[in-house]
Amino acid sequence: MLAVTILGNNSAIPAFDRHPTAQVITLDDQLFLVDCGEGTQMQMSKYKIRRSRINHIFISHLHGDHYFGLIGLLTSMGLLGRQQDLNLYAPLPLREIFDLQLKAADTKLPYNLIFHPLQQEGTLVKNSRCEISCFRVFHRIECWGFIFRQIKPLRKLNPEKAREYEIPASFFDRLKWGEDYETRSGTIIKNALVTDEAPKPKSYAYSADTAYNPVIAEKVKSVDLLYHETTYLQDLEERASKRFHCTTAQAASIALQAGVRKLLIGHFSSKYEKLDDFEREARLIFPNTDTAVEGVTYRV
Amino acid sequence: MLAVTILGNNSAIPAFDRHPTAQVITLDDQLFLVDCGEGTQMQMSKYKIRRSRINHIFISHLHGDHYFGLIGLLTSMGLLGRQQDLNLYAPLPLREIFDLQLKAADTKLPYNLIFHPLQQEGTLVKNSRCEISCFRVFHRIECWGFIFRQIKPLRKLNPEKAREYEIPASFFDRLKWGEDYETRSGTIIKNALVTDEAPKPKSYAYSADTAYNPVIAEKVKSVDLLYHETTYLQDLEERASKRFHCTTAQAASIALQAGVRKLLIGHFSSKYEKLDDFEREARLIFPNTDTAVEGVTYRV
Repeated sequence: MLAVTILGNNSAIPAFDRHPTAQVITLDDQLFLVDCGEGTQMQMSKYKIRRSRINHIFISHLHGDHYFGLIGLLTSMGLLGRQQDLNLYAPLPLREIFDLQLKAADTKLPYNLIFHPLQQEGTLVKNSRCEISCFRVFHRIECWGFIFRQIKPLRKLNPEKAREYEIPASFFDRLKWGEDYETRSGTIIKNALVTDEAPKPKSYAYSADTAYNPVIAEKVKSVDLLYHETTYLQDLEERASKRFHCTTAQAASIALQAGVRKLLIGHFSSKYEKLDDFEREARLIFPNTDTAVEGVTYRV
Repeated sequence: MLAVTILGNNSAIPAFDRHPTAQVITLDDQLFLVDCGEGTQMQMSKYKIRRSRINHIFISHLHGDHYFGLIGLLTSMGLLGRQQDLNLYAPLPLREIFDLQLKAADTKLPYNLIFHPLQQEGTLVKNSRCEISCFRVFHRIECWGFIFRQIKPLRKLNPEKAREYEIPASFFDRLKWGEDYETRSGTIIKNALVTDEAPKPKSYAYSADTAYNPVIAEKVKSVDLLYHETTYLQDLEERASKRFHCTTAQAASIALQAGVRKLLIGHFSSKYEKLDDFEREARLIFPNTDTAVEGVTYRV
């Protein structure tokens, strides 16, 4: 399973009960946090995100609406007794800011925070289930997008069949991973008897804050789901370009050029109270577009 | 008028929809912000606090639950076009943290942020209406309390009388400040004809995060309203002392020793879902105690 849950869909200033950017990527049993605007830890509580399952956090850039909630989340994790390592991928200056904040508070985290400065495009995480990579986008300051690719999705369990073969529920997770089951008497139940073929591996790209640039279409080529910022409606293209942001039409055009399956739009300017026009405008160019809504999980 | 509006009444970790510490002091037409935990700018929007009327912000200490929301508030003020000066009173290391964050974002605030490092006890602000001073408290790191004293409260306007004398409503504020009114024909309406004596000047003390120490009772002697932290109930006195915090009984005892008129308790540990016992325990020692509730304004 690959899915993205929106915790914040707004740009710079919180407004109309919309929060600054944060989203959680679910990849089978792993959770990944992408960006962490102010209030993200409260949004996590509200939407029951299990923060103990997050071992990797990705920060696209150091504008406040993408990371001011991070220090609060990391220290709260410490206060809640976290012990397992946490990997943080972010532009280099964040390390110094964070060190100063911990020093000023005379605080030491009870877990190991492993800081990976973003320096070049390429793979950040690779394990048997997924590969996560970063790519440069075009913002006023150093800014990165991220791509999540499943490598070997879990097989689909047929629970009735499994029960027929008297396989205990505690073994079901291992069945999804492709294991055979051995009964006490030594009989082997072949995995294919109780599971179906895994679905095709899925991919998700988060393009962060960026000016319009067709190069991005190459970088996110053919992903299943693309999240692209649409800070402004189409009529404010000049303002968008001056501020290194995109309009609905530009995001939809990137989706079209990249040949993605679906487009998710977000990072809305605080000047808009209603968001209906965003989806309408984007769909004129790329019909399979959804507006990112806070608290909603979009399955890839 | 002197009043305090609670925006956050919780300690370290946000919990049960309670937020980290922040409060707004209203002193006639001036607003002052004391501490600024994560999410304070959202709380300000929720409770319709006019941030343009805030010209002075006080930060007691550099534990995150007292200042992680500040950088977001200050940059939002900038994005909303603030131009007037803003005075920030805080422990010195905050300046370096803040400078680094602005540099990382390649951002310059469009207004003048005047940083006043807290260094010694005494007066921070003094004008014709009020005096604001700071005092040291006893926490694990450098930590400050603040006292707000009215100097010359506004006179009480009698609007019927003022209308009888045909004084325009646009002059009412100046009447409250004690001015006489001169009609077009040169007749002087003496202020005392349309206003009543100002009430006695009021005072409010915020004691920040602190271990129990009777010295605090001397520092806040005889204020009208004392806000004192009660992170724990009485049975956790040992834990409170180890963590440089107070229990209900200790806060109430300080209020009693200081001879204050009223006690407001807050900064509750996230381990407590219900707060009823806090008020009950404190009132056994100091009956005129209220629990600080978010969104409520306590008039001094």
